[in-house]
Amino acid sequence: MRIALGISYNGQAYDGWQSQPSGRTVQDHLEAALGRFTTQQVATVCAGRTDAGVHGLMQVVHFDTELAREPFSWVRGTNTFLPADIAVQWAHSVPEAFHSRASARARRYAYVLLESPVRPSVDAGRVGWVFRPLDLAAMQAAAAHLAGEHDFTSFRASSCQAKSPVKTLEPVRITRRGAYWRFDFQANAFLHHMIRNLMGCLLVVGQGLQPPGWMREVLAARSRDAAAPTFSPDGLYFLGPLYDAHWGLPDRVAAYDGLP
Amino acid sequence: MRIALGISYNGQAYDGWQSQPSGRTVQDHLEAALGRFTTQQVATVCAGRTDAGVHGLMQVVHFDTELAREPFSWVRGTNTFLPADIAVQWAHSVPEAFHSRASARARRYAYVLLESPVRPSVDAGRVGWVFRPLDLAAMQAAAAHLAGEHDFTSFRASSCQAKSPVKTLEPVRITRRGAYWRFDFQANAFLHHMIRNLMGCLLVVGQGLQPPGWMREVLAARSRDAAAPTFSPDGLYFLGPLYDAHWGLPDRVAAYDGLP
Repeated sequence: MRIALGISYNGQAYDGWQSQPSGRTVQDHLEAALGRFTTQQVATVCAGRTDAGVHGLMQVVHFDTELAREPFSWVRGTNTFLPADIAVQWAHSVPEAFHSRASARARRYAYVLLESPVRPSVDAGRVGWVFRPLDLAAMQAAAAHLAGEHDFTSFRASSCQAKSPVKTLEPVRITRRGAYWRFDFQANAFLHHMIRNLMGCLLVVGQGLQPPGWMREVLAARSRDAAAPTFSPDGLYFLGPLYDAHWGLPDRVAAYDGLP
Repeated sequence: MRIALGISYNGQAYDGWQSQPSGRTVQDHLEAALGRFTTQQVATVCAGRTDAGVHGLMQVVHFDTELAREPFSWVRGTNTFLPADIAVQWAHSVPEAFHSRASARARRYAYVLLESPVRPSVDAGRVGWVFRPLDLAAMQAAAAHLAGEHDFTSFRASSCQAKSPVKTLEPVRITRRGAYWRFDFQANAFLHHMIRNLMGCLLVVGQGLQPPGWMREVLAARSRDAAAPTFSPDGLYFLGPLYDAHWGLPDRVAAYDGLP
């Protein structure tokens, strides 16, 4: 039997999603909790790995098991053995053909940023930070160059294992509320560090250090050297994968997700 | 010379505001940072002490010093020596007649609550939690009994040092956005644990365990035994004191404070 789980976590305390010898990753904690609940070894596959410090609002994993449990029993039972900053949100029985990564037709992320002369405090580790005022129109003009199918090599970490650097990015949505900015990204898939590298470049433009057209040059260069440094993981949230409705999974993202 | 500072902090890691022998309080860290910046011993007085785990969006303190510094120099210099989850937001020179506690004519707090079958994770330590659905109309009817000048003895911790249990509470504002509830409180002053005790009672009514009129009975009883247990500190935020405009202090609370 194949089970899919929706998982939320605050990434501040963890070395990212993917299992590490350190044992300090979200996957390590999840599989340990599933192991204690089932008294069996459980191997999970996720929809999208997240870096150290990146948060997950609705990561999705699948695993195979012989155990029959009610869906909410998986939720409650696993959460008993998870730390306070990781929680299973839902469990759902899925066909063998479902694969958390391969079945995802898109992924969504949000980046939350504090614009303030003073660094974050209440929100430390949960928001990125810029002290210079940002220009919305300039960032929107820069972001317009990114929408569509492109070779995103300039925004790709050297460690990236994706087969192709060509991805299709939906128009980036940039909104502001008080001192908080939010950047919403959706693509069929993302390269390693792609959003943090895109954020670095958008903020270079937003702070007036480069004109919006510079983004087109960076994209065209197909070279990591052309882009800005990788921006902080603190404000990055994996909102979750999108699956076709026929899999019958719960809504991945609530109408209001609690982020600024 | 008297200086006022606005301070924001995430209370999760601290034993509350007030100095303790442990040294693990926000005041201890603030005074240590001021001491390192000024190379003098600095004693601060705050507008309102917060309990362990309670957060501050705009605590205000004052202290006296012989040192002349530009306002933003106090901010930047002190923040250099503060942990990542505490930050001075502003500094302002004030007359000797100003007193952070005595000059405050009101205090504002917000309580943020997650209503979900599953405990918090991304927001762990930053929101309270109920798993039963809440009834807004019932809580509003219960809260209506609280507005005005009352003897709040039923909501007062035994350790409370206030001279009088009579306080004037403005109408409690209850709002909801998705799974997040927010309760806004304003009073001339609050008793120790008063908001957490009020929250405990409001949630008893919101969950249908008591009718709204029960709140009037609890208030009239003037006995701590009549009220519900003290609710969690996790979702409580001190929004800040209100001062008369003639003191010339910056706006205490931004139009949007980043909370759900």
